Amino acid sequence: MSVNTFGRVLRFTTWGESHGPALGAVLDGCPPGLEISEEAIQPFLDARRPGTSKFTTQRREPDAVKILSGTFEGRTTGTPISLMIENTDQRSKDYSDVAQAYRPGHADYTYDAKYGFRDYRGGGRSSARETAARVAAGAVARQIIPEVSIMAYVCEIGGDEIDREAFDPAQIGQNPFFCPDSWAVKRWEKLVDDARKDGSSLGAVVECVATGVPAGWGAPIYGKLDADLAAAMMGINAVKAVEIGDGFRAARLRGEENADPMHPGENGPEFSANHAGGIAGGISTGQPVVMRIAFKPTSSILIPQDTITREGEATKLATKGRHDPCVGIRGAPVVEAMMALVLADHKLLHRAQCG
Amino acid sequence: MSVNTFGRVLRFTTWGESHGPALGAVLDGCPPGLEISEEAIQPFLDARRPGTSKFTTQRREPDAVKILSGTFEGRTTGTPISLMIENTDQRSKDYSDVAQAYRPGHADYTYDAKYGFRDYRGGGRSSARETAARVAAGAVARQIIPEVSIMAYVCEIGGDEIDREAFDPAQIGQNPFFCPDSWAVKRWEKLVDDARKDGSSLGAVVECVATGVPAGWGAPIYGKLDADLAAAMMGINAVKAVEIGDGFRAARLRGEENADPMHPGENGPEFSANHAGGIAGGISTGQPVVMRIAFKPTSSILIPQDTITREGEATKLATKGRHDPCVGIRGAPVVEAMMALVLADHKLLHRAQCG
Amino acid sequence: MSVNTFGRVLRFTTWGESHGPALGAVLDGCPPGLEISEEAIQPFLDARRPGTSKFTTQRREPDAVKILSGTFEGRTTGTPISLMIENTDQRSKDYSDVAQAYRPGHADYTYDAKYGFRDYRGGGRSSARETAARVAAGAVARQIIPEVSIMAYVCEIGGDEIDREAFDPAQIGQNPFFCPDSWAVKRWEKLVDDARKDGSSLGAVVECVATGVPAGWGAPIYGKLDADLAAAMMGINAVKAVEIGDGFRAARLRGEENADPMHPGENGPEFSANHAGGIAGGISTGQPVVMRIAFKPTSSILIPQDTITREGEATKLATKGRHDPCVGIRGAPVVEAMMALVLADHKLLHRAQCG
Amino acid sequence: MSVNTFGRVLRFTTWGESHGPALGAVLDGCPPGLEISEEAIQPFLDARRPGTSKFTTQRREPDAVKILSGTFEGRTTGTPISLMIENTDQRSKDYSDVAQAYRPGHADYTYDAKYGFRDYRGGGRSSARETAARVAAGAVARQIIPEVSIMAYVCEIGGDEIDREAFDPAQIGQNPFFCPDSWAVKRWEKLVDDARKDGSSLGAVVECVATGVPAGWGAPIYGKLDADLAAAMMGINAVKAVEIGDGFRAARLRGEENADPMHPGENGPEFSANHAGGIAGGISTGQPVVMRIAFKPTSSILIPQDTITREGEATKLATKGRHDPCVGIRGAPVVEAMMALVLADHKLLHRAQCG
Repeated sequence: MSVNTFGRVLRFTTWGESHGPALGAVLDGCPPGLEISEEAIQPFLDARRPGTSKFTTQRREPDAVKILSGTFEGRTTGTPISLMIENTDQRSKDYSDVAQAYRPGHADYTYDAKYGFRDYRGGGRSSARETAARVAAGAVARQIIPEVSIMAYVCEIGGDEIDREAFDPAQIGQNPFFCPDSWAVKRWEKLVDDARKDGSSLGAVVECVATGVPAGWGAPIYGKLDADLAAAMMGINAVKAVEIGDGFRAARLRGEENADPMHPGENGPEFSANHAGGIAGGISTGQPVVMRIAFKPTSSILIPQDTITREGEATKLATKGRHDPCVGIRGAPVVEAMMALVLADHKLLHRAQCG
Repeated sequence: MSVNTFGRVLRFTTWGESHGPALGAVLDGCPPGLEISEEAIQPFLDARRPGTSKFTTQRREPDAVKILSGTFEGRTTGTPISLMIENTDQRSKDYSDVAQAYRPGHADYTYDAKYGFRDYRGGGRSSARETAARVAAGAVARQIIPEVSIMAYVCEIGGDEIDREAFDPAQIGQNPFFCPDSWAVKRWEKLVDDARKDGSSLGAVVECVATGVPAGWGAPIYGKLDADLAAAMMGINAVKAVEIGDGFRAARLRGEENADPMHPGENGPEFSANHAGGIAGGISTGQPVVMRIAFKPTSSILIPQDTITREGEATKLATKGRHDPCVGIRGAPVVEAMMALVLADHKLLHRAQCG
Repeated sequence: MSVNTFGRVLRFTTWGESHGPALGAVLDGCPPGLEISEEAIQPFLDARRPGTSKFTTQRREPDAVKILSGTFEGRTTGTPISLMIENTDQRSKDYSDVAQAYRPGHADYTYDAKYGFRDYRGGGRSSARETAARVAAGAVARQIIPEVSIMAYVCEIGGDEIDREAFDPAQIGQNPFFCPDSWAVKRWEKLVDDARKDGSSLGAVVECVATGVPAGWGAPIYGKLDADLAAAMMGINAVKAVEIGDGFRAARLRGEENADPMHPGENGPEFSANHAGGIAGGISTGQPVVMRIAFKPTSSILIPQDTITREGEATKLATKGRHDPCVGIRGAPVVEAMMALVLADHKLLHRAQCG
Repeated sequence: MSVNTFGRVLRFTTWGESHGPALGAVLDGCPPGLEISEEAIQPFLDARRPGTSKFTTQRREPDAVKILSGTFEGRTTGTPISLMIENTDQRSKDYSDVAQAYRPGHADYTYDAKYGFRDYRGGGRSSARETAARVAAGAVARQIIPEVSIMAYVCEIGGDEIDREAFDPAQIGQNPFFCPDSWAVKRWEKLVDDARKDGSSLGAVVECVATGVPAGWGAPIYGKLDADLAAAMMGINAVKAVEIGDGFRAARLRGEENADPMHPGENGPEFSANHAGGIAGGISTGQPVVMRIAFKPTSSILIPQDTITREGEATKLATKGRHDPCVGIRGAPVVEAMMALVLADHKLLHRAQCG
């Protein structure tokens, strides 16, 4: 039971620390014959890459992916695909304060409590930098599910939601917030920049929609598609909540309001609603799979906070250095990657049992 | 990768359909020497048992558990514990309408889409009856974590929340709603009964708190305690959303508001807040683990809904028979069981790596 | 990582002790739509059943299998198949000597060393009776691989081998030894009966051949077909060695002797030898899969042996009661079952990755 | 179920092809605080390294290991340990004959049959070069089990066995055959060199003894120590058979001959024999764990063999290039590594369940 591995038949294992020489992923179970290349994976990493605007951390790294195994003449061979990203901007800084005291909201204390000590440089293994490996693996997973389109976007920052009437998918790639509403972009620019200047941070909500998922993926009872997606998303750094379809709102509906009535359609049933978010009984219905994921505000802030030292003494700590004022923004590409990985996994798992 | 198995080193596998001869769980990896008996497990099943009030389904079954293996002279031996519950009230009814048409919101269509056909009697494997097996397994898991107390309760039905000021844990076992607020009980009696009389149904939110969890349980990156809990809860029938700690509310806080400052304490650090819900970086902090789980309204309602037949013809279907007007109520004991199973699993997993 | 579960995508979990109320298996991942019934499984259990001749233990049990879940109208539904066999001949005997002292060659001491205590009645979980659950699961697995024929037989008892010239598959089901050589049957009758009368026991070698396995099953590097088969067979009670193809004899051949030359054939290549036993690089070649499995002599013998008590005192112990004079004989149906389970698993696993 | 991953709670995943840029292993589940370094791992790789004598392949590579993650200040942190070995001697040669025709005894045909095509350069993923990654991982695993000493040696080449009377462990590291008998070394020098000059190859038997394993490791029923060891060894390239303890010889003994009588001892029981090879009922007895592993002769030989092309035409193929005349020799360090990995895994698994 590798705790650094995710997936059922398509499995990926990640490794690496924030300030080690490199980080990477090994993706196993990929079907043979798929076209993959470093060039095709790179754009997904670029989308997640830090340092591209003042709304993300100023750590600047090319995050260039190398394929070390699993392909031959540009195609997957069915053997494990090893992906590596070298760390190039491990700025030599003084970590003595973080080494000695626990940053509230971070994993500093819990890693020490669990393992007895920790690699404190940049958060070590608990750094969100690890998600680069997921994004690389997710780019390969997309090749397994060409029938599916995945779109993740930020729909709320610091409590300020997008206007659903102004939703324009073409906007998502046009602004630093992965935001589909150009009016919200204006507001968020100020909102996030203000938080940054205050030395504070903001939370965000990411929404993800996968269309083209056929009915029948997902494996009850303990391999339900929604349960696997919940685990995938809750495991992303800073995520504290996950909804499928209407989520918490469904708990406030009556049965007849929450139903997704079915009607005869050209290719299988047509549904006149999608409260369920495309999943019933843990199996995809053929409707879009819809999720919402809540990211807490970045724990690293310049405002000093009460905390304790490793020796248990009271102290105050402000986290200097380069940080995302809203970690949820760069969460969108990671959410997309995890969605791709889970769906590809379930496509293959379904094929195993049901041919 | 058994999809009917859950857990990492403490693993349980469930089997059984709503209207088969029996259902059960096999729990593997349990430490030897723990005292367990049918008598000790039964009260947990009784709490989940249907037919105890007019607010739950009128299916009446004793849900008597039998231990078929894994114990000797009243103690666990370290071998798999087989737990069986016989189905006794499989009322012979006419299932021809459900056999022919798909109930919206149910897994009828998705099971057919996945497997080609289905056991339509009472929902077959997709019935919430399967959760009885989890509750039985959870009762054993509790023995592995005597240091932990787990309490789940319903904190919202049909959008009507409890009053936190009126919170009284002693109330939880005193009413049919697992409700800690005696004033809410009064309101809910009418609310649920009205929905039942209308042939409709209501959603609910269950909250679960585990105290006594030491710092250090949980295994980053893909065995995070919160990710495993999210999967565990999202996999319960009718669940559509999961929050850890402040959950979605955290996305609306600023960094300094969401911090959980640490102070020197007698036995490790003391925290002056618990926005994180007891988990940081996927590892327990030593604070209470807090979750909120949203249940959709029961999909089985008497109000006819548009749907299609297996042959793809338009029809209308009302689900006759015995149903819970609010399936979330009986979700509380299941949530407790899953919490116990995940925590016990992580206690053992932590012991494997960290001694 | 359930240690009472075997398989990758087709997984089975067994439970039960020799003298508990029942034992069973839960088989998960089985494709939907396969015809199975208690009547179709029973003959495989009957082949393994004790008490059918004086050459096996005189414990007499019908070993009647019940299907508790996973089928509907005679066909598998894709949900877990729960198979149960009730124990009916748990003769009430005095186990005080076995409870107090360790039988050499048995798991008595090791279970105590591992778990602190044990269910000593009939060996508890370590009893070969557990293999009945595998045979039942194996009977279902055969339905998944109708293209494959599996034949296991005893080829050596107490060092006395069959004559390959006299090999007649039709003989295998005609004698109590699963022996394909009618002349060896005559010799073995006396050999085994003499050992029985002496209160001693004999070892045996079982050979298993699976024909019809297409090229391409097996998953390098750590899911190799031969490695999975080795684990499957070595895990059978009393097995101490496993060979694929020529096995140890291959270590004495030169490269050109051990080669399996290939020639053009009607349906893929034809091989002019099968030293490899049908597996190259962990993947099936399309030739018959051939294994040989060595069973040690039954450890339970009437001849007193030096041993110690639980308290560490020297004593002597003779194992009274009903025992197989040659446990390898009834191993043949178990070997067949494990072969079926591994091959079915790899058929499905191959389908997952390679379509 | 990653098929390139091995282990239960201590899990390692390997990746890489013979002629790719690098190969490696990711080891997960390792306890924190163990001292590891590239310098400490390197000697184990050097023992397996090719090109050190004329009795092994003349491919010359430094096989220098890099630790890319999982350590901090020289100690393991509990996070995944990524080990990489760069390929430096991928001699540019003409692979057109191997690309077009299948080498008998190799995985060429089976990889094509499974995946549709293959990386034919040096055998791609099926090359024994992959075992370097296991040896590196095994070097780390040894740190987890300081109480255990593991010794593997070649006890037979081409049918010529060592003399047990001449057994001298000090000899093992003193000759290119890992041979404990200096007289056999003399004979083998000529034997192997003659085979090499003939363009032929020889098989070998490796024996492995682990002392210091306490009683209680191993997890019945499907996580038996011997079953896991059998899978570990059978999965090594060219292995065709595996024995525990007396193995096939046990099948020729009577019950009283095969017993391992127990006597009172200073620290637990003392056994007056070890036919069982240190394992009973799948659990270690406290005696040395003893295995014998048969390696077939290297399939790559200069003597032309009948085979077919990818298009199914008859042809003849001799494998030119650099090859081990006896691949079993360099198997010894791999056997040691797998023994270390399995034992370390079971130590941790035992700790999970039994504290």
